[in-house]
Amino acid sequence: MKIVALAGGVGGAKLAQGLSAVLPEDDLTIIVNTGDDFTFFGLYICPDLDTVTYTLAGMANPATGWGILNDSFKVYEKLKKNGSPDWFMLGDQDLATHLERTRLLQAGRSLTEITLHFRDVWNIKHPILPMCDQPVPTLVDTRDQGMLSFQEYFVKYHFEPVVEKIIFKDIDQARPDKRVLQAFDQADAVVICPSNPLVSIAPILSVPGIRERMASKYVLAVSPIVGGKAIKGPLAKIYGEMGIEPSPVHVALHYAEFLNCIFLDNQDVSYGKEIEQSGIIFQATDIMMPDLPNRIRLAEDILEFLRKEII
Amino acid sequence: MKIVALAGGVGGAKLAQGLSAVLPEDDLTIIVNTGDDFTFFGLYICPDLDTVTYTLAGMANPATGWGILNDSFKVYEKLKKNGSPDWFMLGDQDLATHLERTRLLQAGRSLTEITLHFRDVWNIKHPILPMCDQPVPTLVDTRDQGMLSFQEYFVKYHFEPVVEKIIFKDIDQARPDKRVLQAFDQADAVVICPSNPLVSIAPILSVPGIRERMASKYVLAVSPIVGGKAIKGPLAKIYGEMGIEPSPVHVALHYAEFLNCIFLDNQDVSYGKEIEQSGIIFQATDIMMPDLPNRIRLAEDILEFLRKEII
Repeated sequence: MKIVALAGGVGGAKLAQGLSAVLPEDDLTIIVNTGDDFTFFGLYICPDLDTVTYTLAGMANPATGWGILNDSFKVYEKLKKNGSPDWFMLGDQDLATHLERTRLLQAGRSLTEITLHFRDVWNIKHPILPMCDQPVPTLVDTRDQGMLSFQEYFVKYHFEPVVEKIIFKDIDQARPDKRVLQAFDQADAVVICPSNPLVSIAPILSVPGIRERMASKYVLAVSPIVGGKAIKGPLAKIYGEMGIEPSPVHVALHYAEFLNCIFLDNQDVSYGKEIEQSGIIFQATDIMMPDLPNRIRLAEDILEFLRKEII
Repeated sequence: MKIVALAGGVGGAKLAQGLSAVLPEDDLTIIVNTGDDFTFFGLYICPDLDTVTYTLAGMANPATGWGILNDSFKVYEKLKKNGSPDWFMLGDQDLATHLERTRLLQAGRSLTEITLHFRDVWNIKHPILPMCDQPVPTLVDTRDQGMLSFQEYFVKYHFEPVVEKIIFKDIDQARPDKRVLQAFDQADAVVICPSNPLVSIAPILSVPGIRERMASKYVLAVSPIVGGKAIKGPLAKIYGEMGIEPSPVHVALHYAEFLNCIFLDNQDVSYGKEIEQSGIIFQATDIMMPDLPNRIRLAEDILEFLRKEII
């Protein structure tokens, strides 16, 4: 059974790691949000791609959700000391990634090729692909700070400003690599990882060619909301600002046009009925994945469910 | 007495440091070659400017002639491990300079402004100015490896290829900052530091507006050749490839159109007569400057000489 997994940062990386542990390399393609990519100090930085890649390489820092385990911060300390911008932390080993990515981009290589290059460098089995090769910066229009890049909103302002609008700049000019489209076309199912639907998954779905491909697939999502809170990040807060109760219901509705099933947490089982009214089935289980065994457990649950549903 | 000093990398930095130790901040402007600037991993790197700046900030690494004393190499080690290009060593603290310079350039600041910014960051008293704000890459056409950027020739190929031609690309489009021209116009004398005439000083002199200003000034050069050898770098080797005996004579002839005096080493005093035949006077002294006291000593000798000559 061939799976395409859609992933943002930390939550997406966790489930992608679980799936990669139980699926052969030809049966899983991970497609990652690049809307939060940005240029900092002239370097092209892809936070979600890096989180997924580092996680699958077994070198992610689980404490921070970004960067490389046991990394040092020699450059960053000097930047701070020099009075340079320091709102985005840059680990030394992490910088080696940003430097090489920037070098290869300037040499004319595509982000897809570069991402696959790093996959080879770090001996990752499964393909990790950016959703597209063009820069499509997610902008967050806020009440207090005006228009911010996603990293400014998320990191510099700790997602404190009230969100008025989220914009996927230039998304109509985005072109997915042929490997992305091929993975979709060959997939038996699409798994939407527990990433933020508004800022991590929506950009992927907005890339021309993706949404229509979702409609022809069995689509399963894992809720990033547990017990009224986002497992990580600003989702529950943004929902609150939009006057929406943070629950798996709205996550399911977000994907309603193509969603077949949502995995939600046991503590949210009471929302199941409302979800079913939209014609979407649900499965209640433990969806928290603090460690690899739990990631594998959830991945196996998902695959077992899909095997029954699809065949 | 107001001095403009022209400097390349290590030798230039040494004398500039000596001069800065004995001249008030309004009386010395250091103008630095930028022909060896290059882009590496998307970062804009200015080796000569950095060497001069780090030296005057008291943070240069005297053992290497580049980089920052006691710097670490965490990023560089990871680049190597990842299989990225590793022919140009990048210290972690040094990287903080390249990152901030690149950021400020992309934000529209000129290289002159950025260089003066670093001067402030590191509490350097005297102005250090790039010879111009435009990239004017020095290219070295070689018999064995074809056309190389200067850093490729110098660092990647350890100046082993035989030099056929040295090209100052786009130099006719170079524009010195008004502070460069002002420093020249106010100067009582120009001191050409013991840097390579062919690849460090010639680019500065080739910037439109500089050479004609030299003609109206008292110009004193310090020989970078001692005992038939370049104190550092490829000068003697390139002279050899050109069929020229490496001696202070040819250095003086290189500057003949405007040179008033050359300081050469005591061991080269025998060349004095030949130099005088070109109407250039010479002073023999100890021109080696391994440490700060020697740099100050040579700077004081030069200033004492100039005071007698000019007044």
